Amino acid sequence: MLTDPSQKYRPFPPVGLADRRWPSRTLTQAPVWLSTDLRDGNQALFEPMNRERKLRLFHELVRIGFKEIEVGFPSASRTDFDIVRHLIDDNQIPADVTPMVITQLREDLIEETVRSVAGARRVIVHFYNAIAPAWREIVFQMSVPQIVEMVEQYIALFKRLTAAHPQTQWVLQYSPETFCMAELDVSLAVCNAAIRAWDAGPEHPMIINLPTTVEVSTPNVFADQIEWMDRRLERREHIVLSVHPHNDRGTGVACAEQALLAGAQRVEGCLFGNGERSGNLDVVTLALNLYTQGIAPGLDFSDIAAVARVAEECTALPIHPRHPYVGDLVFTAFSGSHQDAIAKGLAAQKPDALWRVPYLPVDPQDLGRTYDSIVRVNSQSGKGGIAFLLQRDHGIVMPRRMQVEFSAIVQALADDSETELTSEQIWDVFERTYLMPVREQAGFIYRAHRLSEQSDGQGIELDLIGADGASVHFQGVGNGPIAATVAALGLPLRIDSYEERSLGAGADAMALAIVEAAWPGVPGSRFGVGRHVNIATASVQAVLSAASRFSEAMADAG
Amino acid sequence: MLTDPSQKYRPFPPVGLADRRWPSRTLTQAPVWLSTDLRDGNQALFEPMNRERKLRLFHELVRIGFKEIEVGFPSASRTDFDIVRHLIDDNQIPADVTPMVITQLREDLIEETVRSVAGARRVIVHFYNAIAPAWREIVFQMSVPQIVEMVEQYIALFKRLTAAHPQTQWVLQYSPETFCMAELDVSLAVCNAAIRAWDAGPEHPMIINLPTTVEVSTPNVFADQIEWMDRRLERREHIVLSVHPHNDRGTGVACAEQALLAGAQRVEGCLFGNGERSGNLDVVTLALNLYTQGIAPGLDFSDIAAVARVAEECTALPIHPRHPYVGDLVFTAFSGSHQDAIAKGLAAQKPDALWRVPYLPVDPQDLGRTYDSIVRVNSQSGKGGIAFLLQRDHGIVMPRRMQVEFSAIVQALADDSETELTSEQIWDVFERTYLMPVREQAGFIYRAHRLSEQSDGQGIELDLIGADGASVHFQGVGNGPIAATVAALGLPLRIDSYEERSLGAGADAMALAIVEAAWPGVPGSRFGVGRHVNIATASVQAVLSAASRFSEAMADAG
Repeated sequence: MLTDPSQKYRPFPPVGLADRRWPSRTLTQAPVWLSTDLRDGNQALFEPMNRERKLRLFHELVRIGFKEIEVGFPSASRTDFDIVRHLIDDNQIPADVTPMVITQLREDLIEETVRSVAGARRVIVHFYNAIAPAWREIVFQMSVPQIVEMVEQYIALFKRLTAAHPQTQWVLQYSPETFCMAELDVSLAVCNAAIRAWDAGPEHPMIINLPTTVEVSTPNVFADQIEWMDRRLERREHIVLSVHPHNDRGTGVACAEQALLAGAQRVEGCLFGNGERSGNLDVVTLALNLYTQGIAPGLDFSDIAAVARVAEECTALPIHPRHPYVGDLVFTAFSGSHQDAIAKGLAAQKPDALWRVPYLPVDPQDLGRTYDSIVRVNSQSGKGGIAFLLQRDHGIVMPRRMQVEFSAIVQALADDSETELTSEQIWDVFERTYLMPVREQAGFIYRAHRLSEQSDGQGIELDLIGADGASVHFQGVGNGPIAATVAALGLPLRIDSYEERSLGAGADAMALAIVEAAWPGVPGSRFGVGRHVNIATASVQAVLSAASRFSEAMADAG
Repeated sequence: MLTDPSQKYRPFPPVGLADRRWPSRTLTQAPVWLSTDLRDGNQALFEPMNRERKLRLFHELVRIGFKEIEVGFPSASRTDFDIVRHLIDDNQIPADVTPMVITQLREDLIEETVRSVAGARRVIVHFYNAIAPAWREIVFQMSVPQIVEMVEQYIALFKRLTAAHPQTQWVLQYSPETFCMAELDVSLAVCNAAIRAWDAGPEHPMIINLPTTVEVSTPNVFADQIEWMDRRLERREHIVLSVHPHNDRGTGVACAEQALLAGAQRVEGCLFGNGERSGNLDVVTLALNLYTQGIAPGLDFSDIAAVARVAEECTALPIHPRHPYVGDLVFTAFSGSHQDAIAKGLAAQKPDALWRVPYLPVDPQDLGRTYDSIVRVNSQSGKGGIAFLLQRDHGIVMPRRMQVEFSAIVQALADDSETELTSEQIWDVFERTYLMPVREQAGFIYRAHRLSEQSDGQGIELDLIGADGASVHFQGVGNGPIAATVAALGLPLRIDSYEERSLGAGADAMALAIVEAAWPGVPGSRFGVGRHVNIATASVQAVLSAASRFSEAMADAG
């Protein structure tokens, strides 16, 4: 860092909008939402979504209630082209949902884009080009008149191409890229040229989208920029004014809220703020901010954990434990005074009254969540707390799916007892669930085993004690101790994954083995755990643990 | 979620500050920073920091440049009391740094607080109490006059107690809790009563801190609230006006920025936005936002990755890959057009000119980072990218410390070749580093092993091929295959941890074993890896891999 950064960076120049109106306004309705999860969000993933994940996320976005969804960049990606055509040709898009596709301004790309969506009931085609000085001068070497001419020329082409497909309602979206860094009069000139070129009006619906591509100013300056444009755009009543905030300064949500005060009617963003660099606008946070002000957002986050799971699985990005509304820690109170105030507030809250519980800006139940008072783990604690206590106090690192399985078991017990569970009690549940899996109905107690190298693999001899107390002896061969144990037991158990690790260090360190197993006809998987100084013994015990848990489940069911 | 939330939630009422000035102002200087990492940040951790981690973070905060640090709640925690006394008694606090301690308004707590800091050169004592209606009515059943009287009474007590310690400069900080939810005239009345009770002035320095305890309104309303107070506080020239934003609506940074425009001179927050629920103000983001506007923040984040490491290790909370300025993905560009624009911008950027590179709001080098163009992994790619490719393409899940070790190896090679590395090339490096660890100087090639159960543990017979090509035969006994292999080799190798897991599923699934090993006299650890259908064989090979890597390191050194 420079001691004096003023020679390298400058404050963003203010707009000087002396008679601004936005700071005196209050939000009264939700904007039109455009999800760009499948486009802007997707292009910044380590591993862009494959077709299956894209379609899964598309249907989740529809379920949530998005009426406009940017589905991709069909002229740049064969996958995107195929997905768009699939959605249209297979009637996968509900009647009230409009897909959007983005394209750069080049003749062949625009032609390919029109081909990708022709036949849709209604479609938004998203034109964008760079107009900010750094791009004009460094990247493209184009003057403002050249840019205006280019925009006019390609919109004219688009008019000609779409005229051949009158069965589709064509909406044009135009984005002057890095609007927030461009001179306002340049942005206005280019946008007005686009409006005239498309002949925006009832016959030619149009969205002017002002992207923050990179955040560069405090949110009040951005709001001034939006209000400045809102007042000057031609044919304003026929234009939907949209913003596309990014989050480089950590103020994407604030920019969107204040832009809505300043005249924007539509926002573009991603679930949980996914997107290039520091992300796009987090539409979940904005929607729930509106909800807490009494405004129906038109998006359904009544089971926010389920939405988070789909997003995490599709993007392979985590959601931070402090993420507003959805993070594991958000509805927790650790300090005694907060817990006390919340307890009193919940007791005083009447069902039909305005929400007024200290430290809880929203009723967690509205989002399918519960309030967690974390001193110890209780019935409302998330899997994070349980996993943490097991790791801290016993070195147990559970795979994520196992955390889900085990926390459900703990929560059921905590619900029954209506008391908090200590770390020791959680460990007790863990031991009873996984490490002592002997039941009357089924299961074996491990006594000893011997491994041998055989020509066809790893051999094992198992000495077990059956449910009736009698000794049982099995033999089997497999690729390793786990496969050999499964073979020896002669059960239809399938081991889908396993993990083994040391607990502690040194000569007396224990080994922990965890297997995830499936059983034909039984839905879902079960985890089994073994713990022993000898890792091979731990593995054998883990298989027995999983087998016993399936036997128990089948006995319970039948 | 309710279809119509307006019966349960209401828009936050506007302030109606028609002649507001803050939206026309521009930030020109950094605020006074108060770190509450050790107090507000600490109390919301799953595992509050122990003494060692607290002291480590304290010294890091000093190194960064914080001049005011809230060190704890000494009257509520024996650990905090002892740490505060240790810092003062052992002269651990630099002359230009002032510690702050918080207390509730109760006689014994205030007395204990004064005892905890008596003798310090200068100290801020932080009084807080709840004044917002929900707290007054639901939690404490107190009227506004009763609250004013209580504040006056305890400040009078504090004056008497501190008069006995004239060698210490006592600064009083008063926080009306959940200021943002309280009626402004109530906040003003209580603050002015506190100002008069302390007799704020040159002899009695005072901070009025307005906490957002819970975010409840859009950031422009908060700015109006601050400007309203700024204009009306008594003895304003003798008061430092401070804000303490939280982040429940994801707008903590925006609230802080606009509060600074509105008259606040000081901000309280935590590194990377740690803190209760959705966190406190992220002071790193605010400081670097100022930096990108040419304002020296007075905090040193020139090696932001090092700061992130300390914070993650002390709090045990992760930093999200999209966190502004510091996240793994923030200085990356995945799309070709972004990469092209950045390349041109970097080429055009002159050393002494204003920073003007498209898509990069700050020069990554100012923060000790580099720009990553992620198509493939290159020499500037983080360990995240390398780990991702190995996991995606080969199912290899590396422990975190191993990611650090391996990414250094990959980056050294990428630097040498000055080209990008493909996923295959990374796998090739992984194989050569860990899976074929045979060198001229040392190491053995695995040929076969036999395990046997012995009375004193797990026995092993190893058939290896030495560096000279001759067969070698070893025997050993240990707790399991790993310990037995170490014993058989007769080397001073110490296995500190191991992990084993399945690669793929089904009968031909492979096992991957990873051991972390230490060797007397060699600094640091080395990882060794084995891969085989038989998990026991993979374990034996992992030990050989680690042993061979130490032999190589010693041969290179000697």
